[in-house]
Amino acid sequence: MPEPAAASPEAPQPRGDHARGDRGAARTDRFAARTEGMTASEIRALFAVASRPEVVSLAGGMPNLAALPLDSLADEVAALVAQEGQVALQYGSAQGVPLLREQITEVMSLEGIRAHADDVVVTVGSQMALDLLTRIFCDPGDVVLAEAPSYVGALGSFAAYQADVMHVTMDDDGLVPSALAATLDRLAAGGRRAKFLYTIPNFHNPAGVTMAVARRAEILEICRRHDLLVIEDNPYGLLGFDGQIYPSLRSMDPENVVYLGSFSKTFASGLRVGWALAGADIRDKLVLAAESATLCPPTFNQMIVSRYLATHDWRRQIKSFREVYRDRRDAMLHALGTYLPPGCRWTRPDGGFYVWLTVPEGVDTKAMLPRAVGARVAYASGTGFHADGSGSRQLRLSYCYPTPERITEGVRRLAGVLEAELDVLHTFGSPDRAGARPAGSTGRPARGPQSPSPDTT
Amino acid sequence: MPEPAAASPEAPQPRGDHARGDRGAARTDRFAARTEGMTASEIRALFAVASRPEVVSLAGGMPNLAALPLDSLADEVAALVAQEGQVALQYGSAQGVPLLREQITEVMSLEGIRAHADDVVVTVGSQMALDLLTRIFCDPGDVVLAEAPSYVGALGSFAAYQADVMHVTMDDDGLVPSALAATLDRLAAGGRRAKFLYTIPNFHNPAGVTMAVARRAEILEICRRHDLLVIEDNPYGLLGFDGQIYPSLRSMDPENVVYLGSFSKTFASGLRVGWALAGADIRDKLVLAAESATLCPPTFNQMIVSRYLATHDWRRQIKSFREVYRDRRDAMLHALGTYLPPGCRWTRPDGGFYVWLTVPEGVDTKAMLPRAVGARVAYASGTGFHADGSGSRQLRLSYCYPTPERITEGVRRLAGVLEAELDVLHTFGSPDRAGARPAGSTGRPARGPQSPSPDTT
Repeated sequence: MPEPAAASPEAPQPRGDHARGDRGAARTDRFAARTEGMTASEIRALFAVASRPEVVSLAGGMPNLAALPLDSLADEVAALVAQEGQVALQYGSAQGVPLLREQITEVMSLEGIRAHADDVVVTVGSQMALDLLTRIFCDPGDVVLAEAPSYVGALGSFAAYQADVMHVTMDDDGLVPSALAATLDRLAAGGRRAKFLYTIPNFHNPAGVTMAVARRAEILEICRRHDLLVIEDNPYGLLGFDGQIYPSLRSMDPENVVYLGSFSKTFASGLRVGWALAGADIRDKLVLAAESATLCPPTFNQMIVSRYLATHDWRRQIKSFREVYRDRRDAMLHALGTYLPPGCRWTRPDGGFYVWLTVPEGVDTKAMLPRAVGARVAYASGTGFHADGSGSRQLRLSYCYPTPERITEGVRRLAGVLEAELDVLHTFGSPDRAGARPAGSTGRPARGPQSPSPDTT
Repeated sequence: MPEPAAASPEAPQPRGDHARGDRGAARTDRFAARTEGMTASEIRALFAVASRPEVVSLAGGMPNLAALPLDSLADEVAALVAQEGQVALQYGSAQGVPLLREQITEVMSLEGIRAHADDVVVTVGSQMALDLLTRIFCDPGDVVLAEAPSYVGALGSFAAYQADVMHVTMDDDGLVPSALAATLDRLAAGGRRAKFLYTIPNFHNPAGVTMAVARRAEILEICRRHDLLVIEDNPYGLLGFDGQIYPSLRSMDPENVVYLGSFSKTFASGLRVGWALAGADIRDKLVLAAESATLCPPTFNQMIVSRYLATHDWRRQIKSFREVYRDRRDAMLHALGTYLPPGCRWTRPDGGFYVWLTVPEGVDTKAMLPRAVGARVAYASGTGFHADGSGSRQLRLSYCYPTPERITEGVRRLAGVLEAELDVLHTFGSPDRAGARPAGSTGRPARGPQSPSPDTT
């Protein structure tokens, strides 16, 4: 095939920050500045191995769909195509199907939210809502606040728009109000202002903790005082293992909170139906941004969700999902307590999909991952959940997808890998494999978050 | 509800270009710079009226799905849910379902494209591919070239990333090579380089013309000489009314052309399944950008398209779509010839959905639109298809959706509106209603393109 012609002498040279002279390719030298920050996960290749059946993957965030009533769903989608196919298979509005938006307000009412369907924007998963909110708020270099650790998909969108992520400390009760206030004061002292706080209050991904109810008003008050918009991402809110539902931030401060919801964890992730609830000014821009992004979300998928909500006992279905996940959470916590070596700490989620594990000092979870996969267990290392390179002593374990027996076996294998790691460390103290470093430092230059993938979300 | 607290004295003031001090809202003053350019279509309100049954809408680009075999499709989707629901309703890869990507290479082979499934990225409609290509290539102020007129959804994405659109002249044989070369020379002389040429070679939206085959090699050669990437958008390529298929630009220069395809016009728009075919360097960035945008395209929709391609005679289905659209094209061309007043010119499409109509000098198609809707006919005025404010003497007529009888009636009504407009112009020469202006000028400041909507694409 012909090579691209050399640029003519008159043609301007590419700008320095785009130049990659050694490539000789005609295209890569003109990527946008933001594209430089888009890098593939270093562990992506490992996932091909990790997805082999002999490997217990505790890495993925795939919901467990085994409890779905596929036969009655099949009947519903067939009826939808046969009876309403001319509408369901056609373009729709960028904001989403009106009936579904009404039903979404009913779903949100379970969390104390009073909303009008006009303020709901349906998106291709709540990831799209997050991406578009970043699009409409963030110029390059703008600050956004996120918990430490934070959702890898959010960090990916923030990086895609060249936002500057500042992490705020969490503890077992979620985001720490004093840390938030201190960060905001520090920003203000430096003449900067954050565009928004991104938070996952319930059953946090990846931290597995929940923002204490007593803290919520305080956090909202701090945000108000600093004129800081809050983006509340709540995909797991209805998956509390005791059926508990915490008051949403949106219900406590409708004016200052944009709420993101999703059917991926309570119904079917492969339909990619999520939503944002926002005040009129933000909603209008979201709809316009959504039109540029995809014209409209798939009508068919929205009508399937709408039918499902109308014809199935979806509350009961969520209850059965909760039971599935509670059993798995129990298996994981029991296995962690049984097998892990001393010096490990982990969170104890009361809902959602994840446990966040801190390993003994000196162990680097990213460096250890290939050895774990060799021992037929996979996890998500902690650095992916930070924009600042920290997290090397942490890892995320998901209990959502494997059976309790597999979870137990996976944790047993992980314990063996950790023991071996600690043996090496104890014997050689090798900085090459597991050098002792201060917590929060990888000993490598900080790097941006890796792109999310369904395997690691 | 409480008002946002006033910013503390220490807090930096919002930057001037974001400030909207008179709003008093806590959020709009911190939108990104790009968001300022996102404005709702001025004619959106009209579409609510235009969608009333008594109005003949020649404005929309909705495909006609009446020919779809809904009963057998219903059986297929039911079988998909019942047999493969655990996969179809689950997250998938950001690049798309491998089997579908294989099948897409077969579809593209009809246009002479030899491609590997590894280079195909499935997107939520080809709009998403276009948006993400702009994301990975365009920094604010970067130049992109597009035909005059161009697809409104493309202009929306270019605006969303603050690209600077330069239009290149078309004639009845599509993009004019000498105009392209002159534009590129002018850019080079000014020390600028365009990031890519965006072109719709076949059955252009909105112009209704096709790039002459004899021109294609010349245009590709000019792009090569100027080291200019080509984005070939081809949603209508298989809808040539005589079954003719033109050689795709991608087939003629695989190294320098990114190809965009879609199932929206050949199968079902409401599934939102499109794709990009790109070389490895661009493909890799597209996949990463797609992960940030939506994690993955809906697995379910991809598997429906895959089953449809495997189980239905999709070539025959496309043939029946072609016949539907040819009948409607015939009705429209006949009606235009029968009813329109002297001084009108229009294109004669041999495929696709659209006729581009130029009205007599002095008539402003945007100003006329409310009167047309009052006369129960709607169209898309030409300014929406330009980024530079031109197009006020043009309008787009779609024949894809209404019946031939409705098309005839719609054109008859439009002719009446035009006659009345010309009467006023002749009698009063009123610049207020239809002042004589140079072609390509609206007499108003140039404005960015309006956001696309399915009604106007």
